[in-house]
Amino acid sequence: MTGGSATDRAFSQSDLTHDAFLGGLLHLWQPRSGYRAGVDPVLLAASVDAQPGQRVLELGCGAGAAILCLGARVPGLRLTGVELQPAYADLARRNGAQAGLEVVTADLTDLPPDLRQRQFDHVIANPPYFDRSASRASGNARREPSLGESVPLSQWVRVAGKRLAPKGYAHFIHRAERLPELMRALADDMGSIEVLPLAPRVGRRAELIILRARKSGRAAFRLYAPLVMHEGPRHLRDGDSYVPAIRAVLRDGAGLKFQAALSRH
Amino acid sequence: MTGGSATDRAFSQSDLTHDAFLGGLLHLWQPRSGYRAGVDPVLLAASVDAQPGQRVLELGCGAGAAILCLGARVPGLRLTGVELQPAYADLARRNGAQAGLEVVTADLTDLPPDLRQRQFDHVIANPPYFDRSASRASGNARREPSLGESVPLSQWVRVAGKRLAPKGYAHFIHRAERLPELMRALADDMGSIEVLPLAPRVGRRAELIILRARKSGRAAFRLYAPLVMHEGPRHLRDGDSYVPAIRAVLRDGAGLKFQAALSRH
Repeated sequence: MTGGSATDRAFSQSDLTHDAFLGGLLHLWQPRSGYRAGVDPVLLAASVDAQPGQRVLELGCGAGAAILCLGARVPGLRLTGVELQPAYADLARRNGAQAGLEVVTADLTDLPPDLRQRQFDHVIANPPYFDRSASRASGNARREPSLGESVPLSQWVRVAGKRLAPKGYAHFIHRAERLPELMRALADDMGSIEVLPLAPRVGRRAELIILRARKSGRAAFRLYAPLVMHEGPRHLRDGDSYVPAIRAVLRDGAGLKFQAALSRH
Repeated sequence: MTGGSATDRAFSQSDLTHDAFLGGLLHLWQPRSGYRAGVDPVLLAASVDAQPGQRVLELGCGAGAAILCLGARVPGLRLTGVELQPAYADLARRNGAQAGLEVVTADLTDLPPDLRQRQFDHVIANPPYFDRSASRASGNARREPSLGESVPLSQWVRVAGKRLAPKGYAHFIHRAERLPELMRALADDMGSIEVLPLAPRVGRRAELIILRARKSGRAAFRLYAPLVMHEGPRHLRDGDSYVPAIRAVLRDGAGLKFQAALSRH
């Protein structure tokens, strides 16, 4: 990222909204304009099969949506987020104060020595979706670092792998079209790769994927049946058309089993 | 492969059966025991969008099922197969005499100089499904080289890429769990990667994938909705339970569009 002052200045209270997640289980302060968490970080958090007491690191945590959704579902986690932009890191600290979220303001490719010596049971990330070498930048200076890549996707994957404890899991949510890059970026010691495609409708191609990989994992790759997010072949009515499994994640704070897709029919 | 005499000796006529493919459009001599073409090479052939006059190379063509199914569907192709085992190469020559199939008996990692100087519009392969470093060998000496890898999967992918003309397409059918290896093995000049998962039933995880990639292709990766092969959630009755799109491929010699999966519902 170039040193734009817009991304360094703290948000003022009037710039913020207080938004409910997981049916009100969690509330987050988010910028009125700028990067606002949608469904994706919530799905990412739901896919993590974390056990109480485990250590979780989020790379690029923004205001904390993903890691705090995970903390709200699984009690007793030790949560750490890394965020490049000071204004978002401040928001994450405020949002995560009650959950004990530790927020480190840092470039993920240049983590402070203390963090480089720690290991985590889970590392999660929702990296920026668009490669700026292949697309045009957003006009919004604060939103831009969250949407466009200042750090290559391969670096996100490599740093996640490095910070994992043996047998720890990395989880990424990303656009399906970036799957080959994600796979190629996985270091040789990352195995047991699982991919859950998220399709907007039945019969439609997946636009998003959740990829999970395990440090020193040796299980065969699994490509799961797509999890279809919305009911029906197309948008027919106003309001919420999510299938029950997705609605349970978004409104009730349920987990999302990769295997759930198997028994969906 | 070790130089077992069982794989070098020609099949005697009594060892062979004459089998119908594509609803009788094509007949192939195949060994009674040993590697016999199933549905997979037929699906591979159906996925190739070849135009009359184009040059097609199959790596590891066995008795010729895939490339001859393709030749039966698209007229006027110039067909070349490479096969390591002389007995299967001989069968492929016999099976492909009418279609003008050229068969080269060679190790795909050590192609004759003539072939190394030629380029093809399509290279197809149905590489052995099992990595012998991770599984036990088949007891059948003739079947073994078709099922177990004497040549690493990555070599199949690299050789295919090398033999492609600019903008040519490589097509592979393989077990879904080998997708990461396939993707990692693709050289940097292979792009426009498309993956069609083949799921046995609705809601079941794909066991097979067809991967297509284009030399110098620049389109984004596409993960298509799975093509479900059988009707219903489980096997309920005897006989053919294929969905119409698959039945049309197997019985009528129809092509298989990657895009067809989009409008299936």
